[in-house]
Amino acid sequence: MKVPIVENVLKINDEMAAMNRRTLQDACVFTIDVIGAPGCGKTALIEATLAACRDDPTRFGVIVGDLATDRDATRLARQCQHVVQINTGKGCHLDANQVRQAVAQIELDAIDVLFIENVGNLICPVGFDLGQDVKVGVFCVAEGDDKAAKHPYLVQEADLLLLNKIDLLPHVPFDLEKLQADVERLNPGVDLLQVSVSDSGLEKWLPWLRDRIAAAISNRASIAQA
Amino acid sequence: MKVPIVENVLKINDEMAAMNRRTLQDACVFTIDVIGAPGCGKTALIEATLAACRDDPTRFGVIVGDLATDRDATRLARQCQHVVQINTGKGCHLDANQVRQAVAQIELDAIDVLFIENVGNLICPVGFDLGQDVKVGVFCVAEGDDKAAKHPYLVQEADLLLLNKIDLLPHVPFDLEKLQADVERLNPGVDLLQVSVSDSGLEKWLPWLRDRIAAAISNRASIAQA
Repeated sequence: MKVPIVENVLKINDEMAAMNRRTLQDACVFTIDVIGAPGCGKTALIEATLAACRDDPTRFGVIVGDLATDRDATRLARQCQHVVQINTGKGCHLDANQVRQAVAQIELDAIDVLFIENVGNLICPVGFDLGQDVKVGVFCVAEGDDKAAKHPYLVQEADLLLLNKIDLLPHVPFDLEKLQADVERLNPGVDLLQVSVSDSGLEKWLPWLRDRIAAAISNRASIAQA
Repeated sequence: MKVPIVENVLKINDEMAAMNRRTLQDACVFTIDVIGAPGCGKTALIEATLAACRDDPTRFGVIVGDLATDRDATRLARQCQHVVQINTGKGCHLDANQVRQAVAQIELDAIDVLFIENVGNLICPVGFDLGQDVKVGVFCVAEGDDKAAKHPYLVQEADLLLLNKIDLLPHVPFDLEKLQADVERLNPGVDLLQVSVSDSGLEKWLPWLRDRIAAAISNRASIAQA
């Protein structure tokens, strides 16, 4: 039996991601793909970020992926008007086509920054470009200090790494220097910022985010003028 | 362009898993597939179990899956003579063929119980039969109380669920009744045992394990006599 050759799934995804990137950049939306394990605190971190930036001029949107339930979208909708939930069923990552469909449900003129909270998984989301500007990898203290070494591809691909739930450090065995050394070996120079969802826990992450947003907006403004 | 049809990956996996199951059952090895998110404490739990059962007549083997490193195998080898590490590269789950190759490296006459510690991932490992007797799903308190609802397929497939790191309960927001209600709705009657790697933290899990091991061994002995 013969069937037509199925084109490379990743190649199709890459083409779709390039379209997303163009759509989002044309609309001057800075897009952040947030990747981390189940329960590392991705939703809580985005929630706290939205709350902390409530008085900023920046307007946020969020696309959130999960196998099932709209719990994360419901949580985030309290902080943000532009939230779309993608339920992937048994799918272990978001792909560019799902993001394309979700982006179509967002009024892009009404936002400046789009968080894409990927499905909780340290592996498969790394390989699928969504059209984001940056990838932020999230580890958490409760997961143990070996996660960078065990998930080298995420570390290598990330533009920024966050170590969340830093407030749990006194309660779990964790060698911070070991994690830092693994990160530095895998992606020299990448920032690994310690965070938690308390107010003081965001004080390293928020300046990084605001700098990146300002740079992206000014860069696009100068391109538009040229 | 035409290519020969590629057979269903899951069908091939199921056939291979059936072979593994026969091999392991013929050798009277009771096999447990341990599935949980990165950092939920799978390795620590197996480590503590091996230590607690040191004086039992039961002899253990462990196959452990990770993208990279042999850190888990090194840890487990301190407690157990029969440990095989599988590095999956970018692979997000173990498959039956990988387990077949790992089983071939273990002297099956020398063990009674085989733990298969799957790659840290709540999604993809659920769909791949490895030839195990039972699947044990591991959540942990630090992940939050919504993980059963968000990962319904693991809950539905599990023969037992463990809630690990119960000692962190005072330090994180967690509604135990909410998790219990989600589990009961998705898989009525399945046990959800609270555990931690302290000595008292295993007192619900060890009797479950010892009962199952005894039942499996007596069941196989009676089949052999028949």
